[in-house]
Amino acid sequence: MNTLSTRHLLGIKDLNKKDIELIFETADTFKDVLNRPIKRVPSLRDVTIANIFFENSTRTRLSFELAQKRLSADVVNFAASSSSVSKGETLIDTVNNILAMKVDMVVMRHPYAGAGIFLSKHVKAQIVNAGDGAHEHPTQALLDAFSIREKYGEVAGKKVVIVGDILHSRVALSNILCLKQLGAEVMVCGPTTLIPKFIGSLGVKVEHNLRKALNWCDVANMLRIQLERQDIKYFPSLREYTMLYGLNKQILDSLDKEITVMHPGPINRGVEITSDVADSKQSIILDQVENGVAVRMAVLYLLAGQTQ
Amino acid sequence: MNTLSTRHLLGIKDLNKKDIELIFETADTFKDVLNRPIKRVPSLRDVTIANIFFENSTRTRLSFELAQKRLSADVVNFAASSSSVSKGETLIDTVNNILAMKVDMVVMRHPYAGAGIFLSKHVKAQIVNAGDGAHEHPTQALLDAFSIREKYGEVAGKKVVIVGDILHSRVALSNILCLKQLGAEVMVCGPTTLIPKFIGSLGVKVEHNLRKALNWCDVANMLRIQLERQDIKYFPSLREYTMLYGLNKQILDSLDKEITVMHPGPINRGVEITSDVADSKQSIILDQVENGVAVRMAVLYLLAGQTQ
Amino acid sequence: MNTLSTRHLLGIKDLNKKDIELIFETADTFKDVLNRPIKRVPSLRDVTIANIFFENSTRTRLSFELAQKRLSADVVNFAASSSSVSKGETLIDTVNNILAMKVDMVVMRHPYAGAGIFLSKHVKAQIVNAGDGAHEHPTQALLDAFSIREKYGEVAGKKVVIVGDILHSRVALSNILCLKQLGAEVMVCGPTTLIPKFIGSLGVKVEHNLRKALNWCDVANMLRIQLERQDIKYFPSLREYTMLYGLNKQILDSLDKEITVMHPGPINRGVEITSDVADSKQSIILDQVENGVAVRMAVLYLLAGQTQ
Repeated sequence: MNTLSTRHLLGIKDLNKKDIELIFETADTFKDVLNRPIKRVPSLRDVTIANIFFENSTRTRLSFELAQKRLSADVVNFAASSSSVSKGETLIDTVNNILAMKVDMVVMRHPYAGAGIFLSKHVKAQIVNAGDGAHEHPTQALLDAFSIREKYGEVAGKKVVIVGDILHSRVALSNILCLKQLGAEVMVCGPTTLIPKFIGSLGVKVEHNLRKALNWCDVANMLRIQLERQDIKYFPSLREYTMLYGLNKQILDSLDKEITVMHPGPINRGVEITSDVADSKQSIILDQVENGVAVRMAVLYLLAGQTQ
Repeated sequence: MNTLSTRHLLGIKDLNKKDIELIFETADTFKDVLNRPIKRVPSLRDVTIANIFFENSTRTRLSFELAQKRLSADVVNFAASSSSVSKGETLIDTVNNILAMKVDMVVMRHPYAGAGIFLSKHVKAQIVNAGDGAHEHPTQALLDAFSIREKYGEVAGKKVVIVGDILHSRVALSNILCLKQLGAEVMVCGPTTLIPKFIGSLGVKVEHNLRKALNWCDVANMLRIQLERQDIKYFPSLREYTMLYGLNKQILDSLDKEITVMHPGPINRGVEITSDVADSKQSIILDQVENGVAVRMAVLYLLAGQTQ
Repeated sequence: MNTLSTRHLLGIKDLNKKDIELIFETADTFKDVLNRPIKRVPSLRDVTIANIFFENSTRTRLSFELAQKRLSADVVNFAASSSSVSKGETLIDTVNNILAMKVDMVVMRHPYAGAGIFLSKHVKAQIVNAGDGAHEHPTQALLDAFSIREKYGEVAGKKVVIVGDILHSRVALSNILCLKQLGAEVMVCGPTTLIPKFIGSLGVKVEHNLRKALNWCDVANMLRIQLERQDIKYFPSLREYTMLYGLNKQILDSLDKEITVMHPGPINRGVEITSDVADSKQSIILDQVENGVAVRMAVLYLLAGQTQ
């Protein structure tokens, strides 16, 4: 069996093209499993996985947990708010303690960029990064690219535009790295205030006009405006943002070709995307969610295989 | 095998008499199982159930979770406070996302009346209403009626008085519908301020004098005063409420016959019921809790049977 | 098979020397199991255990939960913050309700001293005290003594000093009782303000000078300063505490012999212990955590054996 070139999954930047293809082929198998009446496989029986979430997340935590249960792993959940973290314990101590209890793998979400990398250097377990600050969210990027591959047969040569707040988005960064690895053409689109200066160095196009971006692309990945993050000052105002960068049915229908619409969720209906677009047949938003479980099963399965 | 006439369990109003009897007969079997050393049956193996609670609830959530585990279902829990709901996602999006992860059934508690009905019209999964605002709490009503049937052999012809805050109570409404379906005589008792005007249309008697109500009935179901709901202005005062509608040992012993005492919990000891009554042998409060698991196993089992 | 002389585990004071030795021998077996690839044993299949935590705790809750899962028990978790407790329900009612759902054993942490004892007198289930106020934390003391036995072959005759806030510590009290039962010599060390007056009656030495205490002992158990407990007024100041009672590498290396360093966690690095000491090879802190799962498996296993 081929194996990943990395022991952890900290970011897409650790994966080469072959790694990503191996994850996708493995996910294909698991997706078949998930469509059978009996969705559970014994692959990770006797592997114990701790989900350590220092930030709330419905879909990511649930998706990982379901992936783990489908693989027959033993799962323990740990939410930071109900933990010793509030007692001032360090991250390394928290995780080392969990590992001393014979946990094999840690899936971690953390508000600080680089938390997973830091941890992987100081503890023995395998770490899967489920989102670290504005840095990376590798399984989201993998499931996004997997969904494009599912739709078009391949990712190479496809034109993908990522629309929205590129600056504060771990989803954007991981998506760019993943899509470039696989040979897609990538553009980012948004107001100048929400596009980081270093973006050009990643080999992506920048476009400030939504209509032009949409006319160029095959796939538009509409990022979520993070309304709950009060540390982000959106400029222009939310209302202007929606007017300039919100995707509605009228724009969609006026394009030269039928594009595919993606969104990492949770959706702010009426802000970055209208309901009729989110629920249209051009949208593959729920396919992304479904593929998330299969892709995460593949990642966990391939990483676990390395320790044995 | 007989099946329920409904695909979801949104409220007692969706169930006919035959449905309720089928649930009770199925619950009889599961109650036997729960009294064996080996309490787990493989009935729902490979069925995945998500418990989505937008309101806190110890007993209902735990009772459903135990019912699911006894049936060998795969269970994922989801509490609204630790979820994307706080990120402004809509109810439909939250649930559709969970369903895209191949969840078969959703047990939902929600603070708004009709949330389950709304959801059942917009998503594909089977929905079990675990309490929606002041509307319905069907499994509570089923376990209450099941407990009366267990005590007396049948529900038909029994006289049941529901005492307390009928106006804000989903337990009261579901109980009335369930007991009427099964042929019981139902009375409600409380201060005029806590009895809704439409109550007569449900075919129940109204009585404002507790002693008269108790002398009439076979069973008194003492509702909980919801002290934690500050949006409810109780009139008369809590102290007067207890004086007028609280059940104590003195009243109980002064009645012409021995009645059965019920309470949906959690009990405010010394408010709607005194400790000596709650713990007396006329009380079947803990039987209600025990029967809750068996009745919920029956509901989940019968609903799951419909999808296959 | 030998059995424990107690039905519950409420405190070390309920255990005689033979009980403790039986727990340790059983834990030896389970520790072997935990070092195998297949860590799960079927011992508690069909036993349902509820973890009821009225106080937050990462390590203790997780350690119990992993112990239960390794034993194949059915586990339900219940955190007080998301429960009816906030609705004013009494402790007895909460637990009786859980028990009516056919739960066999309750593991409880509670902020009030004696909560477990009170409960054991009023409900039918077996109770394991996972910490009750400043009273006892018996499984912590057992795993601490087990770790000393593992290091030295036996506990009898060893000299153990417990350093820190003895006054507010359930860990200190349970440790003293356990170590004395097993024939160790015990000393407590800390400022007079943090040493309770009754301590002499327990047959322990008192020493206010850290260096003298360390030179006397084989093992130093450095208690956590509970920074999060604002009801505790530390005197002297935290800074002075660290200067006088904090363990650093310089002191450790200046001692006449190589002592063993323990800490119940979570560690305040730089307060009661410096990082270089916590991570030194004289530290058995992570062994304590690892042994915690084995010791808790032993306790649960032996208690469950009594009900059958």
